[in-house]
Order: sequence, then C-alpha cells, then structure tokens
Amino acid sequence: MAEKKGIILLSGGLDSATTAAYAIEKGYSLHAITFSYGQRHDIEISFANRIVDYLGIKVHHTIQLPLELFDKTALKKDSNLQVPQGNDISVQDEIPITYVPARNIVFLSLALAYAESHDAEAIFIGANAVDYSGYPDCRPQFISSFQNMIDNGTKTGVEGNSIIVEAPLISMKKSEIIKLGYKLGFDYSLTHSCYNPDEEGASCGVCDSCCIRRRGFEESGIADPTRYRNG
Amino acid sequence: MAEKKGIILLSGGLDSATTAAYAIEKGYSLHAITFSYGQRHDIEISFANRIVDYLGIKVHHTIQLPLELFDKTALKKDSNLQVPQGNDISVQDEIPITYVPARNIVFLSLALAYAESHDAEAIFIGANAVDYSGYPDCRPQFISSFQNMIDNGTKTGVEGNSIIVEAPLISMKKSEIIKLGYKLGFDYSLTHSCYNPDEEGASCGVCDSCCIRRRGFEESGIADPTRYRNG
Repeated sequence: MAEKKGIILLSGGLDSATTAAYAIEKGYSLHAITFSYGQRHDIEISFANRIVDYLGIKVHHTIQLPLELFDKTALKKDSNLQVPQGNDISVQDEIPITYVPARNIVFLSLALAYAESHDAEAIFIGANAVDYSGYPDCRPQFISSFQNMIDNGTKTGVEGNSIIVEAPLISMKKSEIIKLGYKLGFDYSLTHSCYNPDEEGASCGVCDSCCIRRRGFEESGIADPTRYRNG
Repeated sequence: MAEKKGIILLSGGLDSATTAAYAIEKGYSLHAITFSYGQRHDIEISFANRIVDYLGIKVHHTIQLPLELFDKTALKKDSNLQVPQGNDISVQDEIPITYVPARNIVFLSLALAYAESHDAEAIFIGANAVDYSGYPDCRPQFISSFQNMIDNGTKTGVEGNSIIVEAPLISMKKSEIIKLGYKLGFDYSLTHSCYNPDEEGASCGVCDSCCIRRRGFEESGIADPTRYRNG
C-alpha cells in the first residue's frame, strides 16, 4: 500500500510539533513546511529543524516570505508595538495585537499549492481555538471555510478528491495537547513558544505565549522542560 | 475624502491590465502585486512594469515565490509538459494542463495579507470564467468561497469590515473585456498573453492563450496590436 502523504505546517512551537507527532502516528508520511516572515521569535525555526530530525521527517522546506506583506502586528521583529505580557488571552474578547494579517491563510495556501503539486492528501495545522480564541484564523469556522474554498478552487477539489485540512487540536485545551504529545512520546524540550526569547533562546516566561504554555504544563501535571528567564 | 485603496494582481496580461484600468476609473488608488513563480512566459513581468508606468500606479511589488511550491503544470519553464496549441479551451470539459496548482489561491492570499497590513478595501483580480472555464480558480463559485473564507479568517472580516475580492471581468467574454479596456483608453500593446514567447517577446500566435486573445480582438472589431511569429 502506498503511504499517505501529508504536509505539516511546522512552526517550531508546541502545537504544530504535537500535530506532526499525531499525523505520523496516524500513518502519514510528512513533508514539513516552516515559514520565515520576520517574526520576533525566529529562533523557533531552529527548533523546527530539531523537531524534523527528532520525528524523522525526510522533506523539510523553510520558506522565506516577503517581509513587506505583513505589517500591523506586534509579532514582527521590526515592530514598534509591544508584545503583551501576562494576559489570559483565552478569555479576552479582542483580537490580540500579536495577530498577523492573514497568516494562516497564507501558510495554508502555500502548503496547498505544494500539496497539490506533490500528491499529498492532507495538510496538518496545529491551529487551536481554545487558547487562541482571539485569532480569527485559529477557529473551526475558519478551517471549514478554507476547506470549502479548496473544494471550489483546486483541480483535485472540483474532481471530488479534495486535499483535506486537518486541525486535530482545534478544540483541545493546551493541557490536553501536552498530554497527547506526552502519550505519543514527544519531547517538548524541542519546542519553543516565547515571543521574546533572548539570544540563547531562553524564554521570557511572561509573554502571552509563555503564560499559556506554563499554565498548560501546570494543568497537565507534566513537567515543563522549558528554560525561563523570569520565574 | 480619503482615497479608496485597492490591490491589483497584475500579471502583465490583458485581463489584469483591464481590471487595473477599471479599478482606477472606479476611484481606487492601486498598489500592484506581480508574481514570479517560474512561469514559462516570465517576460510578462516586464509588461507588468510597463502597465504600472502607463497607468501611473505608484506602488508595485514583484514577489518571487519559491519554485518548489508549484509543479504538475505545463506552465512552468522547467516543465517537460507541452503547452497545448490551437485548442478552444472555452468549450472543453477538462482542466487544461496549464492549470497551476492553487495559483490564484496563493496570489489572493498573499495580496490579502498585504491588503490587511496596508488598510486596502479591495483586491482586484482579472479572473475570467468564460474563456477559462476549465480553471477552477477562475470561476464565480471560487471567488465567493474565497470571500467567505476572508470573512471568517481575518481580523477585518470578523469585525464586519471585510476586504472585498473584486473580479469585475468574471462573466465577460474576451471581446467584451477588450471593448471595456478600449473604452477606458487602455493601450493593449503593453500587455502579453503568449505562453511560448520568443526571446524578443514576440508571441507564438498558436498556443491556447494566443488563440483566445486573437479571437477576442477579432470578435471585438478592435485592431490587435500584438506581434505574432506565426500568421
């Protein structure tokens, strides 16, 4: 039987790494795509490389996006906006200023072109609506509308053989994601979450992303292997 | 009153040029985006530059896409597939082998990130379902599903202020497009359609794209300014 081929959007963070481990467990042979888009925490790309090695993923593309595309976000290295600290963004109503315009749309679209060009059946994304409820492009209704667009806008889609966007973590709490990865034997010291890492890659411990990560480990009862500068 | 800002996907071809002229006539201040993706007819990019000058478009980005993304298409320079000749692709059922996987999805997604980052209200695309009925990503149902995805997946979208995809040519015949551009005073010698141009940019006259262009001018009764090698 031919292997099922899947594409994983691999950032170097906890969610996409867990999603990769999950997809492999489901029998997919993965090609990974990592994007460099001027993000503050571009150190995550080196973590993506380690994850690829650890999981034995044989094909990995790191794609540099034109930096002029993305603006109006605190998440870019050249932004004057401050990354928020200590917020519980899982319960806030507003869209965080770390929102990057159309980021997951761009990532999924490029992965889609690659998937259709290379006969992949599925694109795996670690999007998660529970802890990132403020990001429009991390919600189930976004994923389903993107799927509908694939069905209508690609050759394989109109032929009734659509590439499927798989977002297995979409409704999971961070602690549940961590438990899933732990069960799959994944080593979370290989992942990076902090928006404000120092030059050695140590996490700040206080940005929104660190807060969510720390709370997730606490709630899961699993030891957090992350090296934090603060507390 | 502030100007309305629009993004135009400008290939250098006849349709996108007409769309640009149309958008300017509708009062939009345009930023143009042109993509280089290893297309056979990358000479069209130099035509896009001339169109930008002619129309007085002040901001123009030419974006190089990673070539490994797109494959399985006769339209790439490094493809072994032959570009079909002399077909009337407006009446054929199959998707032409010049289909590029998810091309318009990628183009629109990158334009969307740029549009949301730069406060644009609309993205203009010269997609046309009549002469390219075989391309899934040139049909009205694709445009509307992409719009729905924008509404659900972007900050401005969920805030009720979506960026709109405008495809004003979607239901027009090629001859009608040419008549529209002519009425707007556009000079079609600045545009390029051929998939197999020679090094000086002369068109082959026989590929699908040339056939559609030639027939469009014939039906419109407007003189075709194109330099063809054959006939």
